[in-house]
Amino acid sequence: MKLSENEVINKLLNKDLKIIQRPDYFNFSLDTLLISNFVSLVRGTKKILDLGTGNGVIPLFLSQRTDAKIVGIEIQKISYELALKNIKINNLEEQIEIINDDMKNWKNHFELGSQDLIVSNPPFFKVCGNEKQLNELNQLAVARHEIAIDLESLISIASLLLKDKGYFALVHRPERFMEILELLKKYRFSPKRVQFCYTKINKSAKIVLIEAIKNGNSFLEVLPPLICHDSNGAYSQEVLKMFDNFTKE
Amino acid sequence: MKLSENEVINKLLNKDLKIIQRPDYFNFSLDTLLISNFVSLVRGTKKILDLGTGNGVIPLFLSQRTDAKIVGIEIQKISYELALKNIKINNLEEQIEIINDDMKNWKNHFELGSQDLIVSNPPFFKVCGNEKQLNELNQLAVARHEIAIDLESLISIASLLLKDKGYFALVHRPERFMEILELLKKYRFSPKRVQFCYTKINKSAKIVLIEAIKNGNSFLEVLPPLICHDSNGAYSQEVLKMFDNFTKE
Repeated sequence: MKLSENEVINKLLNKDLKIIQRPDYFNFSLDTLLISNFVSLVRGTKKILDLGTGNGVIPLFLSQRTDAKIVGIEIQKISYELALKNIKINNLEEQIEIINDDMKNWKNHFELGSQDLIVSNPPFFKVCGNEKQLNELNQLAVARHEIAIDLESLISIASLLLKDKGYFALVHRPERFMEILELLKKYRFSPKRVQFCYTKINKSAKIVLIEAIKNGNSFLEVLPPLICHDSNGAYSQEVLKMFDNFTKE
Repeated sequence: MKLSENEVINKLLNKDLKIIQRPDYFNFSLDTLLISNFVSLVRGTKKILDLGTGNGVIPLFLSQRTDAKIVGIEIQKISYELALKNIKINNLEEQIEIINDDMKNWKNHFELGSQDLIVSNPPFFKVCGNEKQLNELNQLAVARHEIAIDLESLISIASLLLKDKGYFALVHRPERFMEILELLKKYRFSPKRVQFCYTKINKSAKIVLIEAIKNGNSFLEVLPPLICHDSNGAYSQEVLKMFDNFTKE
């Protein structure tokens, strides 16, 4: 495969899964690994959708855990093209499909209630005031800030597209946990599993993983804390093990 | 001090604070220690109220951290009497006052919006069906089950009694976290700090500590995980250190 200018291939810790990235775009991050490992793949999961898939890393990771069909939708053309290449170099064209569109146009691609599982690593930061203007020119900002999609729109789309009792898994920042819970409730989701991730055991949580069920009940499990780094700042054994889990058989 | 039949004095790990308990009643538990250690005592905290104080252990612990006046209210006569004794043997009559009444009668004891900080270790379990009848005779059940007070009534009373921007700290079970958050919102509380406590690092959370501010904003901090036991089942260093924190100077 011929890489364009600006593109680099990053091999994951394991030998098989390869990811092409552009340093000037949003790159594969720990969030992506964590959510791909966290999500429940219950029996009967046949259709998976990744909202805002970027360069397709969540579908790539999930393809190592399931045979289900995975679709990713991405608004940015260059990220979309990277995702296509990523699928190609990993020979996953049969399992993964990427759509280049605004997820708000979901009606053009999906039926109501058609998905078994929806996953998302959305933009984490709210847009306030003139920040918006500043960042609209910046491709990174679209992945990081709520410019193209905000949390409420994303959750409402997930709710429309999921089947009854379908699963929705989200990675986000703990500072916005309250808002997330309120929106989940508003769109008829019940959080079932939550995991807080910490850089170190003596620091406040930096990442929250949430799994909710459409029209589920309200019993919540708070999973063991996930400590992402050891005292030297390297990835913890638990995170390294996740990379191993995604080694292709 | 003369102890009644059924009463035992438990010295805490430190030498100074003594607690009289009755094995057939609700006893000092880890929850009580955790919430007493967790609660923020900001400058200007002059009036503290413990809703459902039992034998007064939260006021005893807090008295080691603050000079503020602490009032506990307890519906059960025998627990109330134990609380009085506990205060006496620790010579804390000037700082701590215990009221023997149903907290629903708050109007007889407190002004609206009069408290700086309210803390509670409420009954954790809902009452369903004939369990209610069964347990009404049992003094332990009143402390453990929502017989005399349910969560919504407790939170609504806390909201009425706290001043604007006053602090409310609660210890509860993570399974009911969603419900707690909804009720806090309903009664105009914003959760500010949350800490999940785990028996071991590889188990789901067993206890949640929540601090909310009346009419605060919605920024939430999820504190480092608290692991309560070591691999042998003994208290962890972190918990043992808390006992030390409550050593009277």
